[in-house]
Amino acid sequence: MQEIAQVLDFIVEIEKLKDVTRKTRPVGLDRYENSAEHSWHVCLAALMLKDYADDAIDIDRVIRMLLIHDLGEIDAGDKIIYASETAAQKECEAAGVRRLLEMLPNGRGTEYLRLWEEFEAGETADARFARAVDRVPPLLHNLHGGGHSWREHRVPKERVLELNSRIGLGSRALWEEMETRLRGAVEDGLLK
Amino acid sequence: MQEIAQVLDFIVEIEKLKDVTRKTRPVGLDRYENSAEHSWHVCLAALMLKDYADDAIDIDRVIRMLLIHDLGEIDAGDKIIYASETAAQKECEAAGVRRLLEMLPNGRGTEYLRLWEEFEAGETADARFARAVDRVPPLLHNLHGGGHSWREHRVPKERVLELNSRIGLGSRALWEEMETRLRGAVEDGLLK
Repeated sequence: MQEIAQVLDFIVEIEKLKDVTRKTRPVGLDRYENSAEHSWHVCLAALMLKDYADDAIDIDRVIRMLLIHDLGEIDAGDKIIYASETAAQKECEAAGVRRLLEMLPNGRGTEYLRLWEEFEAGETADARFARAVDRVPPLLHNLHGGGHSWREHRVPKERVLELNSRIGLGSRALWEEMETRLRGAVEDGLLK
Repeated sequence: MQEIAQVLDFIVEIEKLKDVTRKTRPVGLDRYENSAEHSWHVCLAALMLKDYADDAIDIDRVIRMLLIHDLGEIDAGDKIIYASETAAQKECEAAGVRRLLEMLPNGRGTEYLRLWEEFEAGETADARFARAVDRVPPLLHNLHGGGHSWREHRVPKERVLELNSRIGLGSRALWEEMETRLRGAVEDGLLK
């Protein structure tokens, strides 16, 4: 097969991410979000928040990471963050990402597999910032949407505050703002 | 208001792009696509197709363009490409993009407004390539989906071939492949 036809096959295959349903509803919408529109949202959010990263980051690498960060869910499905970080889920997502990126010609997928692994490991400045931004929209969905996902999944306030404090590993200013909002939600009884 | 709070307001406001419905269905899905998931799809498609650009491009600028290219639809709505390129629709989209980008602090939106205008004008190498890639998914949706959108909107084959030939302004190889597929669809009676 021609190279470019292989890339087009990949482009068709990744459409399946539009059918992966997440656990929160976008602000103002009645339906749940899908992982493809979420991926767009966090890329643009990262671009507009880049000046608040604490360490020097390469925003274009961050955006590439975020473009591919959820591809593993095509095979593995989406899990709520508060239950997703198990070894089995991670391995299933890694296998899915490998399957997709191997569709690309001439081993071109390898660099993106490395980038996905870097995002998952969360150790570099780029990955820490990408992971920080990735946490923001679901919190905004809950804060502007009656805490629907926290309630549906019975996530206690301690867990929400603890897990999302990782936002501070990428941007202290962003976590300061989000923590203030979360503590406000606790006071308002939205987050219990 | 704090700067970062203004950025978060922008991040919430642009969620409305997830509620803008386009005119084609993603491959394998029964529902119509929305402009947010489309935006993700074209960004990742551009990244994977970058080596087929005819002119030297800055792929990171192309991706930024594609992240924001449909923001105008939040206020203006989506129009099918075959009817969208009117002065009134363009002005309505431009006003919508300005409204959104002016939400950002310190005039930070200005550079993105320029980038959006560059995409719309389609004259630079980056814009030509971004516009070429933007045309590909709806064609794939039709080619893999019984030509549903061509049929629903009674778009004749001559118009499909003519309008999409602009793909060749960004990538001759990509247009060659897509034109072959479209001519195949004409032979199969999918495109009339």
